[in-house]
Amino acid sequence: MHTLTQFKLCPQSRSIRLVLNELQIDFETREERPWEYRDELLAMNPSGELPVLSLSGGPILCGSYAISEYIAEEFKTANGAGRSVSLFPGSREDRAEVRRLVDWFHGKLARDVTRDMLEERVYRAYRAATASSAPDATILRAVRQNLRYHMSYIAYLAHERRWLAGDELSFADFAAAAHISCLDFLGEVPWDDYEPARTWYSRIKSRPSFRPLLADRISGVAPPAHYFDLDF
Amino acid sequence: MHTLTQFKLCPQSRSIRLVLNELQIDFETREERPWEYRDELLAMNPSGELPVLSLSGGPILCGSYAISEYIAEEFKTANGAGRSVSLFPGSREDRAEVRRLVDWFHGKLARDVTRDMLEERVYRAYRAATASSAPDATILRAVRQNLRYHMSYIAYLAHERRWLAGDELSFADFAAAAHISCLDFLGEVPWDDYEPARTWYSRIKSRPSFRPLLADRISGVAPPAHYFDLDF
Repeated sequence: MHTLTQFKLCPQSRSIRLVLNELQIDFETREERPWEYRDELLAMNPSGELPVLSLSGGPILCGSYAISEYIAEEFKTANGAGRSVSLFPGSREDRAEVRRLVDWFHGKLARDVTRDMLEERVYRAYRAATASSAPDATILRAVRQNLRYHMSYIAYLAHERRWLAGDELSFADFAAAAHISCLDFLGEVPWDDYEPARTWYSRIKSRPSFRPLLADRISGVAPPAHYFDLDF
Repeated sequence: MHTLTQFKLCPQSRSIRLVLNELQIDFETREERPWEYRDELLAMNPSGELPVLSLSGGPILCGSYAISEYIAEEFKTANGAGRSVSLFPGSREDRAEVRRLVDWFHGKLARDVTRDMLEERVYRAYRAATASSAPDATILRAVRQNLRYHMSYIAYLAHERRWLAGDELSFADFAAAAHISCLDFLGEVPWDDYEPARTWYSRIKSRPSFRPLLADRISGVAPPAHYFDLDF
């Protein structure tokens, strides 16, 4: 059995869980608190970053970049509806657009919003024994402002295209949905102002691959009621 | 003619310049100051990030991830020595290792060191008209400490392997060399303590593809004498 070492609210981990679910690849998860930098994690991935995918009888793959490209090469199976899911579909130029957007979400959105939001609202509380657990209001204000810019961009893409990178569902959608789902878990997404983004997210959230993510619970944070609602 | 929009001391830009030079692809460069977020840049790449590669008669590719993967698929030519240069050589597992390390250098090393170092020592001075140009000593101390950790890791890889990701030269070497060359331009690399890293860098610096980078000059920063020296 393949093993995905992950943290439930880690966007990079979530993007890979979605991909594995979409491709109907069986795997078990091993929960890791990324802020603890445990020796067992560092032995698998010296960067201490998540996710890490340990393939049964195969290599250990570190990080969503290496994992997604490996999976795209290795697994090309059909999903329940009989359609094959390609992470980087289309022409060479189409694939470049998917990768530009994956970089946008796992790179820029992570830097501008998700990393700091998770640090302030989740990680910090877990570390409360050694530090103050109150989020920094200045940082929260800044990342919430940044999030509005990113919501505008997602709404723009969702309005112009069938999926975020073009006509086909791609890893760009899973990467974006992974970040948005973490922020939505924390009740941070201002849905009312970004209708096309809501419509897009509602479509991807309704996919069977998304269901396990909606069942996630972590101690100390209660997601808002609409987090589970497919028709929110 | 292809056009690379770049900033001379941007590590991501440098990694792509090295790749284009290695593959003997003709291109011209257009210099952009990334901290200015000019409309012309945003029109090509809404993220405002560098590099951007505009292919003659073809697509505009944004960011080192999309560009490197596109080039790996598109161009497979031979270099001067008659050997072909593959950005992601070897088996699927070997390619995952290259990508893990590309992520390490363009992701982690950038976050831990290069981005802040360039901000404090270069960008800030260019913006001096509107802000204080003195680097923040606390930040510099922290990123210099982080750099020692990264130098240890590069030295470890260089000691264990022929090239950083394995037997073959790969995009991981170009990504690492791009960051190290920017830091070396600023005289920030503590070479004496990391002999295997120095040996590796000396080998990659001696390649013809590296020569244009050694000729770079920017106003306000004078690189140390050893920056140009192939046998430093």
